[in-house]
Amino acid sequence: MSDIATAQLSSYRDTIDNLDAALVSILAERFKCTTAVGFLKAENNLSAVDEAREGRQLERLRKLAEDAKLDGDFIEMVMKSIIAEVVKRHRQIASEFGKVITR
Amino acid sequence: MSDIATAQLSSYRDTIDNLDAALVSILAERFKCTTAVGFLKAENNLSAVDEAREGRQLERLRKLAEDAKLDGDFIEMVMKSIIAEVVKRHRQIASEFGKVITR
Repeated sequence: MSDIATAQLSSYRDTIDNLDAALVSILAERFKCTTAVGFLKAENNLSAVDEAREGRQLERLRKLAEDAKLDGDFIEMVMKSIIAEVVKRHRQIASEFGKVITR
Repeated sequence: MSDIATAQLSSYRDTIDNLDAALVSILAERFKCTTAVGFLKAENNLSAVDEAREGRQLERLRKLAEDAKLDGDFIEMVMKSIIAEVVKRHRQIASEFGKVITR
C-alpha cells in the first residue's frame, strides 16, 4: 500500500470517528427527549407503545433513507432497535411511577 | 390528558423526528466514507475486516456513550450492526473488483 493510500485511509477513518461521535451525541439527545416522553406517558397513564406513531416514523425514515441513497431495510432495522430500547425505558419509568402499563 | 400535556408530547415528538432526520443524514455520510474505504481496500487487496480497528472503535464509542449518559451495551449493539453492514458492502465492492477477500 502506497504512502498516499495509507494517508487516505487514515483521513477517512478520522472522518468516520467524527461522524460516530456525532451519532452518539444525537442518540444521547434523542434518549433525553424520549425519557421526557416516558414521564409524560407515565403521568397520563398512556401505553409505552404507540403502534400508529411507530408506523408513521418508520415510513418517514425509510423515505428519508432512500432520498439519502441509504438502504431502507437497514435504517428500519437500526430504528427498530432504538425504538425497542425506548419502549423498555418507558416501561421502567412507568414501573417507577407505580403505573400499570397494559402492553 | 390535558391540552398542555398533549402539546408537550407533540413538541417532544417533533424534536425526535428532527433528530432522526439528523441520524439518517450522518449515517448516509458515514456510508459514503466507508464506501470510499471499501474501494481503497479493494485496490490494495486489504481484508474487509480489521479487528484491531473495530476493537479501538468500540472501546472509544463505549467511553463517549458513557460520557453522554448512554448505555454502553446499547451503543455497542447499534455500532456492531452498522459495522456488519459496512463489512458486507466492502465484500461486495471487492467482489465487483474481482478481488479475493480472505475473511
